[in-house]
Amino acid sequence: MKTVRLSIIGFGAVGQGVARAILSKKEMLTGQGIDLCVVGISDSKGSEINVRGIDLKSALERKKQKGTVATGNESALDIIGNVEHEIVVEATPTNIKNGEPGFSNMSAAFNSGKHVVTSNKGPLALCFSQLKEAAEDNGVFFRYEATVGGAVPIFNLIHESLAGNRVIGIEGILNGTTNYILTRMAEERLPYDLVLKEAQELGIAETDPTYDVEGVDSACKLVIIANSVFGEAASYRDVDVTGITKITPEALELASRNNYVVKLICEAGNGTLTVAPRLVPKKHPLAVGGTMNVASILTDLAGKITISGKGAGSIETASSILSDIMYIVRNS
Amino acid sequence: MKTVRLSIIGFGAVGQGVARAILSKKEMLTGQGIDLCVVGISDSKGSEINVRGIDLKSALERKKQKGTVATGNESALDIIGNVEHEIVVEATPTNIKNGEPGFSNMSAAFNSGKHVVTSNKGPLALCFSQLKEAAEDNGVFFRYEATVGGAVPIFNLIHESLAGNRVIGIEGILNGTTNYILTRMAEERLPYDLVLKEAQELGIAETDPTYDVEGVDSACKLVIIANSVFGEAASYRDVDVTGITKITPEALELASRNNYVVKLICEAGNGTLTVAPRLVPKKHPLAVGGTMNVASILTDLAGKITISGKGAGSIETASSILSDIMYIVRNS
Repeated sequence: MKTVRLSIIGFGAVGQGVARAILSKKEMLTGQGIDLCVVGISDSKGSEINVRGIDLKSALERKKQKGTVATGNESALDIIGNVEHEIVVEATPTNIKNGEPGFSNMSAAFNSGKHVVTSNKGPLALCFSQLKEAAEDNGVFFRYEATVGGAVPIFNLIHESLAGNRVIGIEGILNGTTNYILTRMAEERLPYDLVLKEAQELGIAETDPTYDVEGVDSACKLVIIANSVFGEAASYRDVDVTGITKITPEALELASRNNYVVKLICEAGNGTLTVAPRLVPKKHPLAVGGTMNVASILTDLAGKITISGKGAGSIETASSILSDIMYIVRNS
Repeated sequence: MKTVRLSIIGFGAVGQGVARAILSKKEMLTGQGIDLCVVGISDSKGSEINVRGIDLKSALERKKQKGTVATGNESALDIIGNVEHEIVVEATPTNIKNGEPGFSNMSAAFNSGKHVVTSNKGPLALCFSQLKEAAEDNGVFFRYEATVGGAVPIFNLIHESLAGNRVIGIEGILNGTTNYILTRMAEERLPYDLVLKEAQELGIAETDPTYDVEGVDSACKLVIIANSVFGEAASYRDVDVTGITKITPEALELASRNNYVVKLICEAGNGTLTVAPRLVPKKHPLAVGGTMNVASILTDLAGKITISGKGAGSIETASSILSDIMYIVRNS
């Protein structure tokens, strides 16, 4: 049995999803000779540490009852720096202003020789190259499948499944909230404000929807793709961004009559990075509806490969994190 | 520089595509510290062997001029057994009756401690478990991404990118020829015979189209998926198969008026294997047109992930073979 110890830094929807996924996969993992042992969990109010392995069921229950996992006052950095383990799962919320606390957590992990698996877009959208170099300098893995596309494995697809191909360009829908709003506006011929309210009531849009509807979230994801795939040193501020707030039901109806839909499309290639509403033919592979995410990858040998799936959700994001953990377990 | 020696067994469209891909990727591979050195090529008329590396440009030119790569009489089995190398690229034509010569070539490769990368469906549709066991017994890799979906990396996606997920079921369109015929029949309201003739003239359908239109090709691919993903010991004879030859333009028009298209759908899951024409909603992710292939993979964590791309073509199939070669180079 290969025991791999990990910490979960940030215990919101994603962190809890990871704990649930590890619990539900215990048998499958044991069958593969793998024991994933969580030795530290932290949230904004404190932390739990157990070098012999935290009881994840109790931790989830306590979080539900008390709003925190904390049984002690140790900080995230205390766990990362002082508790022996191999993988840090960094799942604190995205902060696009300065990337904190994610950036400090990831840096501390690399500097103490730990692999990082993350769903946190902020630090990667702001200083990808710096983090990548820190990982390389310390000889550890830096995996971030969960930052883009939720359950859709875009990075693994490009770097592993399409290895040997040169990527020429990428276009896609990387934000489920705006896709939901545009889909509902088109299908029900409803105005933007009304559909946004509906999405907020359903928990698909946040109370402050700015990051989604203004295209900031899409831009962050596009920058992470560009940095990872094209080796660019871009920040999300380099993206030419237009949101969806000015789109009218009339525009969508006109598009529909001509067999088009309007989608918030992210595009990378030829050195340019753009997020903007675009006309997409109804039969086009990018014309996916609801909260779905999709990416079309244009390559030199394989041609265009399109992949789609659920772009968000606690367990879907946990799926990507778990795949990254498995990659590290298999390759370290 | 890591030198990896390979043989290309079978030098038709796929084998030549592999040679062209290796040639065109020389610089990229060198940049990654990899030297792919082809030491043997065989076709039905003979072979070329050069332990210091075959000049692929000359080999391709000679094949074009003379119809064969042969500079000597050594057989495929001579190369596999007697020439030192690490990877056998088995690209002989699919034979669904007894899997030969592919089965013997792959067995010989495993028994002499060589990894196998193949595009040849026959042996895998007939005796997958036997080949898999031979590979495991000899501690070598057995990679077959190119057998299903052309350029679409279905196996790598499931086994690597979605690692940690349990696959519940798979459905998809795995044959480009029938998809082309059904798409054209629906769009142009033309009868089956006429569209088949058009497809034959364009080189999309073979002179004897039986394997494609009767669903045999789809069934072979479905069996390979079932064996690889679900660990079944199925043969293509276990698949419940209905082809597309009895579909009329009237049926397609009726479907279209109700917002459906008809597609030859392969389904695996719950222990059943089916290939049959199915009604698919026009907006459904499986409703891809032309010669495209598509697969929807239903998983326990990631939900449904759908991937589509070119299902055939010399260079597209070579893309999958090259990705498999890269996997072996990185993991051996």
